[in-house]
Amino acid sequence: MDLIIKNGTVVTASGIFAADIGVEQGKIKTIAEKIEGAAAKVVDAKGLYVLPGAVDVHTHLQMPFGGTVSADGYQSGTRAAVCGGVTTVFDYAIQRKGKGILETVKERQALAEGGACSDYAFHCAITNLGENAELLDEFPAAADYGVSSFKCFMVYRKEGMMIDDGQLMRILEKAKDVGILTNVHAENPDVIDARIAAFLKEGKTSAWYHYQSRPEFVEAEAVKRAIHWAVSANAPLYIVHLACKEGLEAVAEARSQGYPIFAETCPQYLEFTSDVYKREDGRNFVCSPPMKGPESQAALWKGIQLGVIDTVATDHCPFKQAEKDWGKDNFTKIPNGCAGIENLYPYMLSAANSGKISFSRAVELCAETPAALFGCTAKGSITVGKDADLVLYDPKKNFEISVKNMHSDYDNTIWEGKKLKGYPVQTYLRGTLVYDNGSYVGVPGSGRYIKRGASGRK
Amino acid sequence: MDLIIKNGTVVTASGIFAADIGVEQGKIKTIAEKIEGAAAKVVDAKGLYVLPGAVDVHTHLQMPFGGTVSADGYQSGTRAAVCGGVTTVFDYAIQRKGKGILETVKERQALAEGGACSDYAFHCAITNLGENAELLDEFPAAADYGVSSFKCFMVYRKEGMMIDDGQLMRILEKAKDVGILTNVHAENPDVIDARIAAFLKEGKTSAWYHYQSRPEFVEAEAVKRAIHWAVSANAPLYIVHLACKEGLEAVAEARSQGYPIFAETCPQYLEFTSDVYKREDGRNFVCSPPMKGPESQAALWKGIQLGVIDTVATDHCPFKQAEKDWGKDNFTKIPNGCAGIENLYPYMLSAANSGKISFSRAVELCAETPAALFGCTAKGSITVGKDADLVLYDPKKNFEISVKNMHSDYDNTIWEGKKLKGYPVQTYLRGTLVYDNGSYVGVPGSGRYIKRGASGRK
Amino acid sequence: MDLIIKNGTVVTASGIFAADIGVEQGKIKTIAEKIEGAAAKVVDAKGLYVLPGAVDVHTHLQMPFGGTVSADGYQSGTRAAVCGGVTTVFDYAIQRKGKGILETVKERQALAEGGACSDYAFHCAITNLGENAELLDEFPAAADYGVSSFKCFMVYRKEGMMIDDGQLMRILEKAKDVGILTNVHAENPDVIDARIAAFLKEGKTSAWYHYQSRPEFVEAEAVKRAIHWAVSANAPLYIVHLACKEGLEAVAEARSQGYPIFAETCPQYLEFTSDVYKREDGRNFVCSPPMKGPESQAALWKGIQLGVIDTVATDHCPFKQAEKDWGKDNFTKIPNGCAGIENLYPYMLSAANSGKISFSRAVELCAETPAALFGCTAKGSITVGKDADLVLYDPKKNFEISVKNMHSDYDNTIWEGKKLKGYPVQTYLRGTLVYDNGSYVGVPGSGRYIKRGASGRK
Amino acid sequence: MDLIIKNGTVVTASGIFAADIGVEQGKIKTIAEKIEGAAAKVVDAKGLYVLPGAVDVHTHLQMPFGGTVSADGYQSGTRAAVCGGVTTVFDYAIQRKGKGILETVKERQALAEGGACSDYAFHCAITNLGENAELLDEFPAAADYGVSSFKCFMVYRKEGMMIDDGQLMRILEKAKDVGILTNVHAENPDVIDARIAAFLKEGKTSAWYHYQSRPEFVEAEAVKRAIHWAVSANAPLYIVHLACKEGLEAVAEARSQGYPIFAETCPQYLEFTSDVYKREDGRNFVCSPPMKGPESQAALWKGIQLGVIDTVATDHCPFKQAEKDWGKDNFTKIPNGCAGIENLYPYMLSAANSGKISFSRAVELCAETPAALFGCTAKGSITVGKDADLVLYDPKKNFEISVKNMHSDYDNTIWEGKKLKGYPVQTYLRGTLVYDNGSYVGVPGSGRYIKRGASGRK
Repeated sequence: MDLIIKNGTVVTASGIFAADIGVEQGKIKTIAEKIEGAAAKVVDAKGLYVLPGAVDVHTHLQMPFGGTVSADGYQSGTRAAVCGGVTTVFDYAIQRKGKGILETVKERQALAEGGACSDYAFHCAITNLGENAELLDEFPAAADYGVSSFKCFMVYRKEGMMIDDGQLMRILEKAKDVGILTNVHAENPDVIDARIAAFLKEGKTSAWYHYQSRPEFVEAEAVKRAIHWAVSANAPLYIVHLACKEGLEAVAEARSQGYPIFAETCPQYLEFTSDVYKREDGRNFVCSPPMKGPESQAALWKGIQLGVIDTVATDHCPFKQAEKDWGKDNFTKIPNGCAGIENLYPYMLSAANSGKISFSRAVELCAETPAALFGCTAKGSITVGKDADLVLYDPKKNFEISVKNMHSDYDNTIWEGKKLKGYPVQTYLRGTLVYDNGSYVGVPGSGRYIKRGASGRK
Repeated sequence: MDLIIKNGTVVTASGIFAADIGVEQGKIKTIAEKIEGAAAKVVDAKGLYVLPGAVDVHTHLQMPFGGTVSADGYQSGTRAAVCGGVTTVFDYAIQRKGKGILETVKERQALAEGGACSDYAFHCAITNLGENAELLDEFPAAADYGVSSFKCFMVYRKEGMMIDDGQLMRILEKAKDVGILTNVHAENPDVIDARIAAFLKEGKTSAWYHYQSRPEFVEAEAVKRAIHWAVSANAPLYIVHLACKEGLEAVAEARSQGYPIFAETCPQYLEFTSDVYKREDGRNFVCSPPMKGPESQAALWKGIQLGVIDTVATDHCPFKQAEKDWGKDNFTKIPNGCAGIENLYPYMLSAANSGKISFSRAVELCAETPAALFGCTAKGSITVGKDADLVLYDPKKNFEISVKNMHSDYDNTIWEGKKLKGYPVQTYLRGTLVYDNGSYVGVPGSGRYIKRGASGRK
Repeated sequence: MDLIIKNGTVVTASGIFAADIGVEQGKIKTIAEKIEGAAAKVVDAKGLYVLPGAVDVHTHLQMPFGGTVSADGYQSGTRAAVCGGVTTVFDYAIQRKGKGILETVKERQALAEGGACSDYAFHCAITNLGENAELLDEFPAAADYGVSSFKCFMVYRKEGMMIDDGQLMRILEKAKDVGILTNVHAENPDVIDARIAAFLKEGKTSAWYHYQSRPEFVEAEAVKRAIHWAVSANAPLYIVHLACKEGLEAVAEARSQGYPIFAETCPQYLEFTSDVYKREDGRNFVCSPPMKGPESQAALWKGIQLGVIDTVATDHCPFKQAEKDWGKDNFTKIPNGCAGIENLYPYMLSAANSGKISFSRAVELCAETPAALFGCTAKGSITVGKDADLVLYDPKKNFEISVKNMHSDYDNTIWEGKKLKGYPVQTYLRGTLVYDNGSYVGVPGSGRYIKRGASGRK
Repeated sequence: MDLIIKNGTVVTASGIFAADIGVEQGKIKTIAEKIEGAAAKVVDAKGLYVLPGAVDVHTHLQMPFGGTVSADGYQSGTRAAVCGGVTTVFDYAIQRKGKGILETVKERQALAEGGACSDYAFHCAITNLGENAELLDEFPAAADYGVSSFKCFMVYRKEGMMIDDGQLMRILEKAKDVGILTNVHAENPDVIDARIAAFLKEGKTSAWYHYQSRPEFVEAEAVKRAIHWAVSANAPLYIVHLACKEGLEAVAEARSQGYPIFAETCPQYLEFTSDVYKREDGRNFVCSPPMKGPESQAALWKGIQLGVIDTVATDHCPFKQAEKDWGKDNFTKIPNGCAGIENLYPYMLSAANSGKISFSRAVELCAETPAALFGCTAKGSITVGKDADLVLYDPKKNFEISVKNMHSDYDNTIWEGKKLKGYPVQTYLRGTLVYDNGSYVGVPGSGRYIKRGASGRK
């Protein structure tokens, strides 16, 4: 054996049990009440939970956006990830007009290679199918290459990233045929633009109007519309960063009728409400969709508890304070996005540790379901034969988040001062210790590209 | 008295009763079991039903569209109207970029004046709010002028008539404040365009693909979206030419939750299904939205019977055969629209006469509710003080529709050969006989502009 | 003419207009802008509304219940009725085990004859179908006799009045076939009994526990169950005294799906909430179902405004104070029921006069719809040929309800002190003045039995 | 090690993987890619699936019913169970008026002891709470004794087993407080009785009228009612043998709103439709609820696939042919119930093997979820530390069910002739081989009583 983790309490989505875990060549080889033999390394996990590494299926690393580039590159972003217990990071490679899917993905892949601290995969955000929708023809090749999920932005028309409903339908139909899961960012662009125009005309420019320009009903409409198309195409659909009650209800209803509609939310929507936009530093919380009112927050927690929400991911896309400040006097100039990659697992586990959800449910939301849904067959759970992506979690260790104890390249965080009950103490990536009690101890570049299987089933 | 109609059976939305009707100066003065005194004219309506003149709230006269102009002008269209028992015709005045609302309406009004055979009113179809939405400022003046309903096309982007969701929301919000009812043509433009492009690429060009390019789910989506915005704005909404089951269900649901959402359908959706597009002459049936499948047809009849549908109107917009033939080999070249203005009331009354609905319900759908909903306070029912717009209907007279016995300027009709049970024998416009047993007997130009009150309540 | 009412403002469910009304032989003969000829009696209604007499379809006169008999007999009850503008009163004749339907009805009819001050009709409450359901065979004869509506109590098992679900289904099926409308009192008896037993055991005996023993969910369940059976039998159903939000939602949903489910509520549920049971005199408000919480009250008003609720009636069933006091220390000993017959129309018209609903809607709820739904073809609206049941209403006359100015035989009223805006000043029953400015001026016994037609359609 | 199962393919609800399994003292000690050490017994499972033993949570052994006693006693029933891969059997101990819960359970427990071939647990069917509901006081003791689920029959009034709604509410409220999950048999007794009476009167006595007397809407009503009470009490609810579409939809809707409502169906409802009651031997299929129409069957499969249905169990309650024949000429005399305990797992696994569901889903439905939901913490999945209840399944072995190759005491089966794809070849109960290739090889009496933990969470 290369590694034995002894005396820990293993958590899976199905349950919790005491067991030793034996690792060889980066894989989980043995799960047993007691593993006797020798091993290169033996770790005593007494008093600790042993969890599968989390899979953050929503990040934007090194992303050109809002007139700058998001603050975390592939190295710093994935370094922060493993320090927070995330061992697999999905980045969104954004296809542009005239560019192919593989061309787009491989370009980002090249940026990631060499520096990645966690394993990584790519969704491809399709923004333009071409004059004659010829990009559809590349879908099978994309699936073969392991890119079995696409994203469609229903917003960002001016940014050249928006997909209209006609293209969305064609994507849904074709994607379904080749085992690709379509993700959507659901908000309504025209209503947002009209509201922004009206606010600017009235001189309403504070961060509060970021929220007011895209309130609950703006997101809800797009969620319902996306579901309508998916149901019409009989295709699976995954709604990213769901943040409103009415949208959640639409997901629940479609699902109770048997449609494969999946939903992701993010820790920021669980922790904050739109009230943050009234704060002095409201601009720092600007992301899209914005945080919503308390009814939505409560509904999301209920969805978390009940299983309507399938995954929690971060939409990690931090910007430096100086960049956020561009919009001090005009919310339309604030780069949209917040940090989160290092906070995901600790936040959800702290919720478990506080009794809000079970540890099994936290693991299901952050590791098992995202891995299963997006075809990461070797990831997401502590099972014989899977990658030994493991997190040791100390339920007794308390932690206060600060930009100072994070491992990213950003210089501010919306999570500043947040107190957590329990915290990860070690992270193993395919059997190798990469995070140890506050420090990244791995070798940048050891992260690998994950060629995924078909997406869309739990 | 100027006119007494004796011995008839009066139909109102509330009931049916035997009564004489006395008319003076174009108004209903007396309703009585027996009116004794003398009168300039006495008509014996024994064996006949006496009905209020119908109000067709959806027509397109002299409309430039599809590369030509619709076949009926204001004179021929309104002539046909009164010959079918319609005494009030609503035309859609289509505002264009840079033009004002009153400017637009008055232009059409000028065309109508002098030749109109029925009374007439205008909705204004708003197509462009201007750079800074300055058209909103004209809404109160429009309401004052009696134009208390607007239409928004959710389609026809290329034709420069489409309103996007952002503008729609602003229109809904402002319209509500000034007592204007917003109408929508609900279909999804982008999905239509994408489907058309795909069909053309595959060489699928028959009339059947007109339907296939805008099937049930394309209309349903837009209906649900329009309702979402209206509910979000807490504004009343009127959905024109509703033609699909799922859209109807959305209306019913919104209404059962207390929102003022109204729905209109047209005789063509009640009579035909999408099967007509498989016919040799399928192009003649091309209108938008297209006729749908039998489930939708059945649902619409149920909506008619139960009260979910509020009004029946025609979307009268005929084109000459030579123009329809432009699209013989390519459905995208067919001018969209069909005849109907002269068939509305006879068709619905024939349904009543056959037991499908009650006569009271037919009157409610074609006269009382459209008048009430659109602020025609002097129209729509046989009540003391209202305009003496009256139709004598012979339930025993059978009729077969043919282009030869219609009073329009078109040269073909989708209703050719349709047999009706019962038919109008006389129409009175404000007390004056204008239609008598097959012939128009009025004076063109006697029709008047109707300055309407606030819209949106039944 | 026997009677002309001049210069009034006539209200129908469809609208409001100025007109004179001419009456002959108890019937409305003429409605005209101006009636010139002579008449035995001419009344100047300047400044007054002229309304159809109301139809109270839910009363219990001289009813043996709760160990006593309700305080109003047929004479005093109908006297109070006309003094409140109600010209037709429906009483519930309660069939008992072994008794026939006509036998039951005729017995009550005999009690009414000779003393009735208003016209009257009977529903029959079926309580026992007999060993082999032989009572079903009498349904056609009942319909022929004009008893075209039955009631089923889903409660009152101990009182021997309850109908179980099996019998209810059979009644619904058979009633549908012969044009009889089935009414239900919807509450769940077993849950009520279990809750009462638990409360008594705990010594909880105040009036508040009357409400607690039959809270919202107890009524809602039975409403949903009754609808389920009606939908399963495809039979029309009328829910009496609906008092809870969830039940109302079930009605709205069934109706939006096209089922003929009708709902009645009562003024007491619109005016009071369950808070009255906390009052010192809470026992006086004890009726079943009890008043509910404010959410239900708000929902009922919304249903009134939107048309989900079809009728308002009273469930008039007053008891003397001494009898109400039996339950001073034990809510189970309070005879259930409250006064209302004289307050129905003034209350709803005051709501109209205050802008809460339109006058047309008040007339629709209290007169036109109940008459139409229950086959009173000569009643309920101001139409040529109908009975001249007319109410003159002074919108400027204010009124404060007191047991002293009511015309019943009870000695207390839950409406004591209620201030109304506007009040009826005259009531005509078939053309004869029976109520004049505070006094009953008719001849007891002039009320007639109404042989009704088929029920169940609006 | 006592036992090593090598080279098998392990199935859990979360996934499928190759692993060896090591067992010691009846527990799973090790799951590993390869287990090297020696063992008392080594089994080569090459080509076989290794599954957790199934948990049949719905059986009636030695049950006095319909004038006789069900054909399988505790020994023969549990023997058949293990021969079909079921290692834990739940029996329903039926409390009777005047009897306590523990008294009832212990009586049945005594019958089971000594002869049981599988492990076993008891639900208690509560039929009478006592005059003053004093049985409620025994609930905590029942939970302590491991009886953490109760059943309420909403039918069987004459048999003295029915619980009325009032008692049901009290049970739900109290059970929730002590971690007991309430199960219901949902059908409406009064409608059934009324329909039976009507059929008998008309001489309709064939097995077909068993179905007609309790059609879809009879079950659906009770399901909706039970859910209403559970939601009102905010208590978890488990619906046994759900067999109709409308009921399933009610479960889905309640669940999408966040209520802990669980549903079980049975193989007979998945395999047969009501058409079986038209067969010559229709009486053999008589059970309650009866098999329903094809829409319900299709809906149940959809519920199985989508997760709305939580568990599959058997309602095993066979009767001898001679007893079934009692009702040859009168369906009311047929003892209700069919065989199934030995067919459950093979049937569902055959569905998996045929691609209808995944093997993981089959395991989830038959083992993991029933164990979790009913507090069998040591059962239901292949996890280190759990009981070594293991089934080796040969996907290539075909099987045809016949009463001759079953291991029960009955003499007929509705499953006769059913062909299955794949079949269990070995069953281990806590590490001991008890079934081997067609034969029971265990020692009767080795089955143990399972003291369960709290029920109601998955």
